[in-house]
Amino acid sequence: MRLSRYFLPILRETPKEAEIVSHRLMLRAGLIRQQSAGIYSWLPLGKKVLGKIEQIVREEQNRAGAIEILMPTLQSAELWRESGRYDDYGKEMLRIEDRQEREMLYGPTNEEMVTDIFRSYVRSYKELPLNLYHIQWKFRDELRPRFGVMRGREFLMKDAYSFDLDEAAARRAYNRMFVAYLRTFDRLGVKAIPMRADSGPIGGDATHEFIVLASTGESAVFLDKAALETPVPGADTDFDGDLTPIVAAWTAKYAATEEMHDAAAFGALPEDRRLEARGIEVGQVFYFGTKYSAPMGAKVTGPDGQEHAVHMGSYGIGVSRLVAAIIEASHDEAGIVWPEGVAPFDVGLVNLKVGDAATDAACAGLYERLSNAGIDVLYDDVDQRAGAKFATMDLIGLPWQLIVGPKGLANGEVELKRRATGERETLTLDAAVNRLIGA
Amino acid sequence: MRLSRYFLPILRETPKEAEIVSHRLMLRAGLIRQQSAGIYSWLPLGKKVLGKIEQIVREEQNRAGAIEILMPTLQSAELWRESGRYDDYGKEMLRIEDRQEREMLYGPTNEEMVTDIFRSYVRSYKELPLNLYHIQWKFRDELRPRFGVMRGREFLMKDAYSFDLDEAAARRAYNRMFVAYLRTFDRLGVKAIPMRADSGPIGGDATHEFIVLASTGESAVFLDKAALETPVPGADTDFDGDLTPIVAAWTAKYAATEEMHDAAAFGALPEDRRLEARGIEVGQVFYFGTKYSAPMGAKVTGPDGQEHAVHMGSYGIGVSRLVAAIIEASHDEAGIVWPEGVAPFDVGLVNLKVGDAATDAACAGLYERLSNAGIDVLYDDVDQRAGAKFATMDLIGLPWQLIVGPKGLANGEVELKRRATGERETLTLDAAVNRLIGA
Repeated sequence: MRLSRYFLPILRETPKEAEIVSHRLMLRAGLIRQQSAGIYSWLPLGKKVLGKIEQIVREEQNRAGAIEILMPTLQSAELWRESGRYDDYGKEMLRIEDRQEREMLYGPTNEEMVTDIFRSYVRSYKELPLNLYHIQWKFRDELRPRFGVMRGREFLMKDAYSFDLDEAAARRAYNRMFVAYLRTFDRLGVKAIPMRADSGPIGGDATHEFIVLASTGESAVFLDKAALETPVPGADTDFDGDLTPIVAAWTAKYAATEEMHDAAAFGALPEDRRLEARGIEVGQVFYFGTKYSAPMGAKVTGPDGQEHAVHMGSYGIGVSRLVAAIIEASHDEAGIVWPEGVAPFDVGLVNLKVGDAATDAACAGLYERLSNAGIDVLYDDVDQRAGAKFATMDLIGLPWQLIVGPKGLANGEVELKRRATGERETLTLDAAVNRLIGA
Repeated sequence: MRLSRYFLPILRETPKEAEIVSHRLMLRAGLIRQQSAGIYSWLPLGKKVLGKIEQIVREEQNRAGAIEILMPTLQSAELWRESGRYDDYGKEMLRIEDRQEREMLYGPTNEEMVTDIFRSYVRSYKELPLNLYHIQWKFRDELRPRFGVMRGREFLMKDAYSFDLDEAAARRAYNRMFVAYLRTFDRLGVKAIPMRADSGPIGGDATHEFIVLASTGESAVFLDKAALETPVPGADTDFDGDLTPIVAAWTAKYAATEEMHDAAAFGALPEDRRLEARGIEVGQVFYFGTKYSAPMGAKVTGPDGQEHAVHMGSYGIGVSRLVAAIIEASHDEAGIVWPEGVAPFDVGLVNLKVGDAATDAACAGLYERLSNAGIDVLYDDVDQRAGAKFATMDLIGLPWQLIVGPKGLANGEVELKRRATGERETLTLDAAVNRLIGA
């Protein structure tokens, strides 16, 4: 993409309303624009990152055997009365009346609707296990939306729902999602640690939150440093196999948020293994048995010929929130430092002298060679001074910057800068291309 | 994907509430489930088709130079008061009040919001042309929603918005979208003809509707048969070049919906070129000048140093409606006949004797070879009688069926059926694999 044809509205001033660094950087780097309190438009760079996160989440859900569907944003109040949550849910639920005066709501979550889908079609245990997920916009009418997309009102979430004959099978479904989450966050380039958690309004007796460690995080967390060294399962993980050892390796190590903190258990750790840090919740997994299936009549015939209410779990990932969480975990004074898996472009190609025939030609050649090799390049072909170009590139945080100017070209050289480390190398054009293609 | 692990709820009965064939087939083939009047969940097969259409639309928008963003579903009433449309829009607009009693609405379209984005960032004609699009759920509170997703209330739409300095440039933007639409619908496997249209509530003085021809279509259309033979521009079309000849080749031929029909002009055609048919609107392009930019103050400084309200156009494609429109245009007595570009899977692999060691092994081998070659296979590994398997495969309409049973295998053979033509061939396993990989 040529910058001259792109829409990248960079703000030079730090927006006053933004209290946290990810919100400031997302506004400054032209990722989002607020449309109403807690409601954002995603500008081109932000939309690209959101799409990359969504795709990684999708691939790992599919790998773990979950099946993608798409439920609507609006739901009928009737459905929520069946589970008893319509009245329980407070003002955070956005209630809507349509032209026929039917009571509707903008879904904050989908346990009821997916249970309705299940009960409409599934009759036998032979059709289990089943895990249905979707990636859809939700609404939570926060009293004080703030921190940008970290605590917005309209937000994008992946939510999966598992259906099993009994608790043992449901625990296996839980483990599949637990492992999928470890892989997902690893591919997103963040360190996310599963922690014992409180089940809140979803209900249920087994739940873990996945918390990204970031010094600017919203909550205090306490963990055994050994958790940081626990290996993330590979792409060849057999999701049909026994995942208990993987889950046990993670849950055996002390890790808890402030609300679930057990000071005695933490204190029992050797002092050099105790880590007090801060974190951001990016996902949560729940097992809640028959909490929804029993009142809503989601039953299957078991091998015993009897009807059984299915055992369910739900599994959320905050997709839009993750954009902010990744930035909180990965930025510096100059701007965002995107992990490679979610960067909006792989390389920023900086033309230091637009209009100079040799520099333009070299840049056009590099742009074509890299693009043909499948590398996604943002080519800064705009006539602007070098300082502003460098500041923009650092701000938007692409993994690599390839800097091309007449001086270097006179020696057949360009400069390659790694955003994460600031490391710079002077290379021939061919060497730079090969480095990036190999990267 | 193995059918035993998939979620494909086929209905054997024809649902009574469905009045048109696409609605019946979408319910029977397990593509959608109605959640409330005009509001649907997309089940796995439907979600896959929807995603494929979305991706083709996205690729062709990008090719034409449009840039993807994502605006939220909810908008503030305030914004719509600026254009004067808040009061004009009737009961089809779903009006919402949040907990702070702010007036909101579920966006039926996004002219106001995108104009707000534009005016917030763009100051100079040097930043033009600009075309921003998104693919997002919209809501239109139809009094009588019907025909399934053909006329639903919550629907997925691609809407693009172009911004230019003057009318001449805006007409070029219009032509780029016009050509992108020809390519998009062609890749979706439907014959969509641009027709002179009425601008309706969007306003504007140049507009074309793109109509898919289908005998079950909602509206009568009149066209010169020569329009059907007009070539669709290739992938190598230069969108920076002059597209007028391409657009002229299409618009020169008579093509109009009933409301814009000019019987005299149509009658002047040689009789054998007059075609009266039926069609379904799947897209519309508008040029509306400064209708929104003037009242909303979306201005740029021109080369003359003066401020100019930008000239705008908007360009919609009904993404969810297209799923139904494609089915209306492509089905037979037995079910859906998906065009290759949008088929949820490329091949249905039918195991006629699940449990028979040789048949299971042959199917597993074929499944692996085809999957490794990048072919998306739905493998029917469920123990069911052959008749039901064939009926399901015909109903869900995958382009190819690869049928494997013990009798054929005894001779080293399988059967390959082309869904569109019903043509069947008996082939060796290797020949069948090669045929599909080459297909």
